[in-house]
Amino acid sequence: MVRIGIIGAAGLSGRELLHWLKNHPQVKIELLTSSKYQGRQVSEVFPELTAYSQVFEPNESDVSACDLVFLAIPNQASLELVPKLLEQGVRVIDLSGAFRLGDTEVFSKFYQLTHTAPELLDEAAFGLPEFYKDEISNARLVANPGCYATGALLGILPLGDLLAELDRAPIIDAKSGVSGAGGRVEGDMTNYVSVNENFKAYKVFAHQHQPEIQQYLTELSPYSTKESGDVIFTPHLLPVNRGILSTIYLHFPEAITVAEIRSRFSKFAAEQKFVHFMDEGDLPDLKVTLNSNRVMIGAESDESGQNWVIVTSLDNLVKGASGQAIQNMNLMCGLDESLGLL
Amino acid sequence: MVRIGIIGAAGLSGRELLHWLKNHPQVKIELLTSSKYQGRQVSEVFPELTAYSQVFEPNESDVSACDLVFLAIPNQASLELVPKLLEQGVRVIDLSGAFRLGDTEVFSKFYQLTHTAPELLDEAAFGLPEFYKDEISNARLVANPGCYATGALLGILPLGDLLAELDRAPIIDAKSGVSGAGGRVEGDMTNYVSVNENFKAYKVFAHQHQPEIQQYLTELSPYSTKESGDVIFTPHLLPVNRGILSTIYLHFPEAITVAEIRSRFSKFAAEQKFVHFMDEGDLPDLKVTLNSNRVMIGAESDESGQNWVIVTSLDNLVKGASGQAIQNMNLMCGLDESLGLL
Amino acid sequence: MVRIGIIGAAGLSGRELLHWLKNHPQVKIELLTSSKYQGRQVSEVFPELTAYSQVFEPNESDVSACDLVFLAIPNQASLELVPKLLEQGVRVIDLSGAFRLGDTEVFSKFYQLTHTAPELLDEAAFGLPEFYKDEISNARLVANPGCYATGALLGILPLGDLLAELDRAPIIDAKSGVSGAGGRVEGDMTNYVSVNENFKAYKVFAHQHQPEIQQYLTELSPYSTKESGDVIFTPHLLPVNRGILSTIYLHFPEAITVAEIRSRFSKFAAEQKFVHFMDEGDLPDLKVTLNSNRVMIGAESDESGQNWVIVTSLDNLVKGASGQAIQNMNLMCGLDESLGLL
Amino acid sequence: MVRIGIIGAAGLSGRELLHWLKNHPQVKIELLTSSKYQGRQVSEVFPELTAYSQVFEPNESDVSACDLVFLAIPNQASLELVPKLLEQGVRVIDLSGAFRLGDTEVFSKFYQLTHTAPELLDEAAFGLPEFYKDEISNARLVANPGCYATGALLGILPLGDLLAELDRAPIIDAKSGVSGAGGRVEGDMTNYVSVNENFKAYKVFAHQHQPEIQQYLTELSPYSTKESGDVIFTPHLLPVNRGILSTIYLHFPEAITVAEIRSRFSKFAAEQKFVHFMDEGDLPDLKVTLNSNRVMIGAESDESGQNWVIVTSLDNLVKGASGQAIQNMNLMCGLDESLGLL
Repeated sequence: MVRIGIIGAAGLSGRELLHWLKNHPQVKIELLTSSKYQGRQVSEVFPELTAYSQVFEPNESDVSACDLVFLAIPNQASLELVPKLLEQGVRVIDLSGAFRLGDTEVFSKFYQLTHTAPELLDEAAFGLPEFYKDEISNARLVANPGCYATGALLGILPLGDLLAELDRAPIIDAKSGVSGAGGRVEGDMTNYVSVNENFKAYKVFAHQHQPEIQQYLTELSPYSTKESGDVIFTPHLLPVNRGILSTIYLHFPEAITVAEIRSRFSKFAAEQKFVHFMDEGDLPDLKVTLNSNRVMIGAESDESGQNWVIVTSLDNLVKGASGQAIQNMNLMCGLDESLGLL
Repeated sequence: MVRIGIIGAAGLSGRELLHWLKNHPQVKIELLTSSKYQGRQVSEVFPELTAYSQVFEPNESDVSACDLVFLAIPNQASLELVPKLLEQGVRVIDLSGAFRLGDTEVFSKFYQLTHTAPELLDEAAFGLPEFYKDEISNARLVANPGCYATGALLGILPLGDLLAELDRAPIIDAKSGVSGAGGRVEGDMTNYVSVNENFKAYKVFAHQHQPEIQQYLTELSPYSTKESGDVIFTPHLLPVNRGILSTIYLHFPEAITVAEIRSRFSKFAAEQKFVHFMDEGDLPDLKVTLNSNRVMIGAESDESGQNWVIVTSLDNLVKGASGQAIQNMNLMCGLDESLGLL
Repeated sequence: MVRIGIIGAAGLSGRELLHWLKNHPQVKIELLTSSKYQGRQVSEVFPELTAYSQVFEPNESDVSACDLVFLAIPNQASLELVPKLLEQGVRVIDLSGAFRLGDTEVFSKFYQLTHTAPELLDEAAFGLPEFYKDEISNARLVANPGCYATGALLGILPLGDLLAELDRAPIIDAKSGVSGAGGRVEGDMTNYVSVNENFKAYKVFAHQHQPEIQQYLTELSPYSTKESGDVIFTPHLLPVNRGILSTIYLHFPEAITVAEIRSRFSKFAAEQKFVHFMDEGDLPDLKVTLNSNRVMIGAESDESGQNWVIVTSLDNLVKGASGQAIQNMNLMCGLDESLGLL
Repeated sequence: MVRIGIIGAAGLSGRELLHWLKNHPQVKIELLTSSKYQGRQVSEVFPELTAYSQVFEPNESDVSACDLVFLAIPNQASLELVPKLLEQGVRVIDLSGAFRLGDTEVFSKFYQLTHTAPELLDEAAFGLPEFYKDEISNARLVANPGCYATGALLGILPLGDLLAELDRAPIIDAKSGVSGAGGRVEGDMTNYVSVNENFKAYKVFAHQHQPEIQQYLTELSPYSTKESGDVIFTPHLLPVNRGILSTIYLHFPEAITVAEIRSRFSKFAAEQKFVHFMDEGDLPDLKVTLNSNRVMIGAESDESGQNWVIVTSLDNLVKGASGQAIQNMNLMCGLDESLGLL
């Protein structure tokens, strides 16, 4: 049994971890913390989680009973807490953005924070299991990817060597439900009357997931920003609770056949537990990944074969956050990658 | 007083015409038809329209009491009816797509219909008042623009001569509420459980508004598809009743300054009654144009000044359909363009 | 021209007043205040209100240029401001609950506030124009009714003398959109993820509109709480932006015929500009009153004729707040009751 | 292993059965039918159900490989099919309303159908496991309860002997998401634009679940309609996908203490796997039962103690349909009642 703790267990991601972990056969929950609800019973705060008899502890609680801790707290709080936890010999899966970017200047620019633990950046494994299985398995610290970054990277990276041929920067037009966008933007953006029957772009050319997508795209593929330009990423706020749909525009100087594109995605999906490539002619909508840890991908081209639209769908609270974190925990603990996630 | 008729007055666009015309000071309604509700009183079918004492007549009713007729019926039905109405000396504003495209082969491909009145295509004025005021004023037949096309064209065309410099095709990633998308796609797409808490792309590289955008973009600007490629247009279905937000990606080989872009849009907006250009740093959401005949436009660039994102917002049932149709009627009848629309 | 001011013009009710007043032919806006947005231009804060060139002033601004002032601020703030305004000779329409209840003990209990201006309670006219036209016309101070109270009272009071026969307390099961419920309850209730895809009862047996309904029901009809009991009122929170639907259960010891019930409502509706009684067999939904100042009413009985369900629909921001306030302003100023509201 | 079939596996209830059964450890799926999708693979029609390799067969397929069959088809179709299935020795759980009512005249009146298998009515067990465990365990035919009926009965019946004291008919004001209401009402009621941002009462004094509630209330408690009147039931349509919230009004001639009411519900909940009684002061909303087989119940009284409001929440597709059906299957097959449902 893995003895785990969740710091920030009453936020959206924390609550989602509780939902999935309640049936996980190899997990023993030792610590749940919440600054807002400390002292109250989990099932009183979340009546739907009747299985939990635990009480929320303060965020600063002793973690020594835990082998592994999930951090579902703001960037700044993670930045401060992670070094302390590692020092105590606890392994960490950090759901914040604190340890995803390798460049502290880029971090400062997009997060408006000074990075106070740069010595850990090299060590931190990027928790995208489809590409970093070994690193994650052996990591003390896993930086769980951003929800938008997961949807973008898994829609582009499977093309592998074909990405060397792109002559223009990929354009990622992404649309997120409120639970995916809300935590990272100010006040009014999560108010019902502001969001319902509405739709908007936000943080255009300024969202912190753009450098995350770009860093791992260049690290994991032959795509070069110098030659083809910075990745263009536009997030939008959808009036739904959960889900991210990304519409990705790729342009090739020469036609790429349907067979070439489909074989890359099909092969990739066949090797991965939580990646599904749609049948020809089908594109995923949000519904097909709701409440699941899967990402689903579809692809369409124009008649020239030069322009491709890739559409990816995932549930931002599952594959985009807590489900992926559990997938990473499974790998770190030598368990089946999909345990507790089907 | 203009004596008008509405053929198809009980559909979404027809009902919206009724809403706006009930307070129009220069309109006398002579005929309202509906195949579904013929024989029933308007205010019985739509209790919110208590002002209407008329009864819905059959679609084939005599229009001789009308000076001008709005057609809010399917493409095929418009195609058949328009020649007959013109023959009877009635002026027509057609809200369908039947007379928007100049090329009957393109029409056949995208509408899956043979064009049976090609002799009228030259004569038909494209009902985008911001660009065709004179043609509309004198027209017997106005082809009211598609909702997506209105949002795309008004976000690109104001840039005028700058469009000659585009070295890549504009990419229009558009998101529409159900009333804008529903009429033109099959069954399940308008079912509540299918749409609510969902989001999807549809008709990728296959939507009939793509050639409409492309035709008028090349007709009204120096943009050349031969040099820079076919316009890329991806429609999506939003879980809201009304509204279209278009995110438009433009790429210039050389940096364009903020001042250059803003001056083009500001000048254009200043000359137009229903175009509003947002303050610097602001982008429109759906809410700012809800229930109004306005299109609102915002623009953002990346640091290089080569990549621009233009966002436009409109209400698909007003500026995207019935409001624009009334704007056209006002022009055709020598009235103030905004009469009844403020 | 009536010279008016709006204190709290940037809240939901204030913004709705701005929407309706922009086309009102007899109103001149002298003062708009907002504590949150003071110093900013109206059209910058609300891009959809392009017609307004004014700047939001502080809430404490001088009102001496105004004949009449709308208060769209919290209960406590109204309680403090109203006596000062009246002293300055300005007439006041108060949209808060501060001056609706005649009994200061009941007020304290339901509003958790001590009433600091009890001397004005007798003078304040209850702004339900269907029943207090004369009082409103002559009032210095109008207490604009609560949204729930308007929907409940207009569904019961038209039955007039029949209400003497009720042998049980009316049960009002009311469902409100977020803009109607949000202002009066705490934090989380207006968060998108909490409200969307959800529904709940709140403040059961504890909502401040219960004593309001009860007071005016007994004042304006022969209904007696001593004989038949306290009115039962349960508010619920609907995942929609606007609208209140009230399902009202009435029980008579002897059968009442359909004709008797219908004649009472029909007669009442015929005399009122903004009350509509549905055709037999029809009940109103929220949509039929959206964005209008109307209340729509329907009635159904069981086979015995003893049990009646009355359903009323209104838009909480219009007939439930700002529209009704303008209706009251028209009466106070000797204008047509419906001016600017059609 | 129980070998099961689902007739009508692609409707809302059928699809929900597939969702829950995919992880059920004691079920082997032998037959899935769908008239609409026959010949197509399950995972092609529902990409989210990637686990299913089966193909939808025609509704008339041979069921001889099945021990037990779920019917998720319309009332008329169930009425015809059930006798044939029983004759073949297959046990049946019927999710339609065909075998719930004991009185064929009442059935005809509310379902507009003649009952063609009245000989089976006595034998059919009513599939409310909280009250009919033994009958269900031994049944050949289980009539799975209506979603509204489940929510109403589980909110009233736990009061047991106290129900003898009710001097007025219970009033059940119920609000259902579209998946609960849609299947049983006509066309427009499930169209997105008709439902979204809307709310309505429907089938007032005419819904087929009223006699179902009344029959089992009188059968399972001392409540008497002769003395206290027919149960009053008003269904409403909520703009959400799933969930039913019922607000139940009970009146006692003498005060009932909070302790009395709470002890009845607490005791009942303690004995049942899927019934949860809220803490004092709490009422359930829809969210707490979403995607679960639980019903959650809360209770509040006025100061007199004579008027009580009971609120129940359930997911109409789970406890209101397919989850309850699986609970019944478990009982029929001697398995743990909650197998596959946690």
